[in-house]
Amino acid sequence: MGRLATADRAGQPHVVPVCYAYAAGSFYIALDAKPKRVAHERLKRVRNILDNPQAALVIDHYDEDWSALAYLLVRGTAALLPPGDPEHARAVELLRARYPQYRAMPIDQQPMIMIRVESVVAWGAIEPKT
Amino acid sequence: MGRLATADRAGQPHVVPVCYAYAAGSFYIALDAKPKRVAHERLKRVRNILDNPQAALVIDHYDEDWSALAYLLVRGTAALLPPGDPEHARAVELLRARYPQYRAMPIDQQPMIMIRVESVVAWGAIEPKT
Repeated sequence: MGRLATADRAGQPHVVPVCYAYAAGSFYIALDAKPKRVAHERLKRVRNILDNPQAALVIDHYDEDWSALAYLLVRGTAALLPPGDPEHARAVELLRARYPQYRAMPIDQQPMIMIRVESVVAWGAIEPKT
Repeated sequence: MGRLATADRAGQPHVVPVCYAYAAGSFYIALDAKPKRVAHERLKRVRNILDNPQAALVIDHYDEDWSALAYLLVRGTAALLPPGDPEHARAVELLRARYPQYRAMPIDQQPMIMIRVESVVAWGAIEPKT
């Protein structure tokens, strides 16, 4: 899991946990079919991206031993990929390989959030402990 | 752990994993002593808050069974509490009770991020499965 931060035009941040796949400089985050009561929040995330494409994604590792804490902070430009786009189809494959839960979900029929990476900051114990 | 999202004046989001304590409508996040190479990122987080006090904090639960996914999205106004402030002292106690790792760290001598909660959105399986 990662956590995706966006902001609206007035600079109000929004952050939600997300499943993601990565390939060749881009992260992909599906808009999956979730219960209807999520529609508003999902819309907010998407609306923010359409209003302000600047996005940040953090991928972190927690450990009771704080010397083993680590995270990657990715910043980039977000956009929506439409279903049918070849890059969308590839992202669906990547997501379904990484998360079996997606295989039964129609993520191929919904737009997909794409983030083109512009910068990455690594913090902490990035080398895994052995 | 939670993840704290802030944004700079230009609306660029920033998000980092954080330890937090909560009391009476406010979240508290220490600026702990971390390796010197973090100074820039720490500064960015703090600078964002000083430039744009709007903040968001997500606290989530992951489960392989996606019907058990849940998160709380908190939005509010952030500020820095100076050491010596009674509210700061109480937050240090709360954080040290929650995270024993903080007991040996001089978080009482550094400013503390405080978020006054303005809204909370709960999503998913908020009742724990039994």
